[in-house]
Amino acid sequence: MISVILLGAGNVASHLYNAFSASDSVEIKQWYNRSYDAIKSFENDTEVIDDLSQLKEADIYIIAVSDDAIANLSKLLPFDNRFIVHTSGSVSLHDLDKKNSRGVFYPLQSFSKDAEIDFSTVPICIETEDKSRLQTLKTIAEAIGSKHYKISTEQRQTLHLSAVFVNNFTNQMYRIAHEISDAKSINFEILKPLILETANKVQDMSPYMAQTGPAKRNDKKTLKKHLKLIKDEEHQDIYKLMTKSIQKTHGIKYRFDIKRKNNNER
Amino acid sequence: MISVILLGAGNVASHLYNAFSASDSVEIKQWYNRSYDAIKSFENDTEVIDDLSQLKEADIYIIAVSDDAIANLSKLLPFDNRFIVHTSGSVSLHDLDKKNSRGVFYPLQSFSKDAEIDFSTVPICIETEDKSRLQTLKTIAEAIGSKHYKISTEQRQTLHLSAVFVNNFTNQMYRIAHEISDAKSINFEILKPLILETANKVQDMSPYMAQTGPAKRNDKKTLKKHLKLIKDEEHQDIYKLMTKSIQKTHGIKYRFDIKRKNNNER
Ligand SMILES: NC(=O)c1ccc[n+]([C@@H]2O[C@H](COP(=O)([O-])OP(=O)(O)OC[C@H]3O[C@@H](n4cnc5c(N)ncnc54)[C@H](OP(=O)(O)O)[C@@H]3O)[C@@H](O)[C@H]2O)c1
Ligand SMILES: NC(=O)c1ccc[n+]([C@@H]2O[C@H](COP(=O)([O-])OP(=O)(O)OC[C@H]3O[C@@H](n4cnc5c(N)ncnc54)[C@H](OP(=O)(O)O)[C@@H]3O)[C@@H](O)[C@H]2O)c1
Repeated sequence: MISVILLGAGNVASHLYNAFSASDSVEIKQWYNRSYDAIKSFENDTEVIDDLSQLKEADIYIIAVSDDAIANLSKLLPFDNRFIVHTSGSVSLHDLDKKNSRGVFYPLQSFSKDAEIDFSTVPICIETEDKSRLQTLKTIAEAIGSKHYKISTEQRQTLHLSAVFVNNFTNQMYRIAHEISDAKSINFEILKPLILETANKVQDMSPYMAQTGPAKRNDKKTLKKHLKLIKDEEHQDIYKLMTKSIQKTHGIKYRFDIKRKNNNER
Repeated sequence: MISVILLGAGNVASHLYNAFSASDSVEIKQWYNRSYDAIKSFENDTEVIDDLSQLKEADIYIIAVSDDAIANLSKLLPFDNRFIVHTSGSVSLHDLDKKNSRGVFYPLQSFSKDAEIDFSTVPICIETEDKSRLQTLKTIAEAIGSKHYKISTEQRQTLHLSAVFVNNFTNQMYRIAHEISDAKSINFEILKPLILETANKVQDMSPYMAQTGPAKRNDKKTLKKHLKLIKDEEHQDIYKLMTKSIQKTHGIKYRFDIKRKNNNER
């Protein structure tokens, strides 16, 4: 049985709390948060605290607080030579105070508080300063059904960057499509199956192989028609830049001129 | 029983052939393609032809050929006053020769030849010149289990544009993430669950509500770190433009300067 103390009560900490609670091989010894209100309702299930001096001994301390707060919180911990990890994709292992043995337990998934998370679909990127601590991270990842991947700091930061492309930027593509179709009273429902299919396709095919559409086909007539249809200047820029990017990937010579037209041309 | 003649043997026509063949309420009377080779192997299952003069009478002719070839092929049809439709998202109904009654049967999904298609997840956008023909399109859509949506030409063209954002541009985001992670020997597998989760999330939540990440949080430290990590200039431009777009959507004032650094700064 591995004893865990959770620090933080945001999206990640709350989902980890639920997942660890459901596991037989992990015991949540304490749950700390700066503001007590966020964890108060769990008083009967575990020991909840808002005072760092009350922290007990545990096999691992998981610091799941905002990126900017990680370094400082690790300094405030009133002990040393124990095992502490953060859960961030972008913060360095070395941002944790070196009085403790440091590690990272980064779940590569997008968490929001209401949406349920099935940890068996969450890859966890693990990293430790001290090799002998690696097994602890593997065990708690397995305890919640997650696959784990040993990753260097540099790789983790690159993964975090990649995640911005496949998650935040992709979601913004959905948002733009939503705006464009809303403006013509089109039900966004119609686009949802295509959104799913696009994500499904790259589960067993490379994005390179999966590409289709007017940019890849270099269908100039459609490309021009689309640009004319787009009213928002920023959406036009995105259309041009993404078309150019697709054509570069697929070795097509034709490229939109990315420069803005000047105003009297509009 | 509705009799259908298919023209074309590409991605869309092939999938429609399979779906109609499996249905009890549609009969494929003939299958035409310019090059016989593509349909030769179906000789025993249906009447395959490569000569337009052999076309028989049918309730509906579905022209599923390349966008650029639709207008011309519709002119070459050796009959009039029958019901012809194309399957394109971007071609106007009026590009079909007006000697026949015209319509559109646009399946909003991304087809590739090898990937199987479940038509129950394919919304079909339908449009007819003659109102009385609408029922035929509804019936054949229902015959293959598809939902149908009556859509105007303008709406269809806007949908096609929106589809480019949620499909082609999103897929290019996956591709860029693939390139970025490959360069650091990171297994692309790690990103696949996040790709799925991002698409799943907007099935019951608006893309606006689903957004997270450094741009939305205006986490300047991470934004700067990411820009430094990106080596490719075009990927940098995409990072900046998408960050700006997210921040505009969410009413955040801070914006990256989208201009290129000049060369001696690099
Ligand atoms: N959300 C995701 O999708 C995701 C995915 C993978 C990794 N991560 C990483 O997981 C960590 C937590 O993210 P999250 O999304 O769970 O954050 P969150 O929902 O915004 O919650 C932030 C937590 O940090 C605490 N906190 C903030 N500033 C603090 C400070 N100065 N001192 C002490 N505690 C402070 C907050 O306490 P209060 O309740 O008192 O405000 C809250 O419990 C971050 O490192 C993040 O990069 C997030
Ligand atoms: N693919 C998709 O994801 C998708 C989705 C929705 C709608 N659509 C629309 O469906 C239609 C067909 O697309 P597709 O992807 O199936 O195309 P495709 O796989 O590229 O197949 C093109 C077909 O058009 C024929 N063709 C090309 N030029 C011709 C010409 N000049 N005269 C006669 N036939 C010609 C080809 O015949 P040969 O075999 O002789 O070359 C082939 O059968 C297009 O309007 C497209 O916009 C496509």
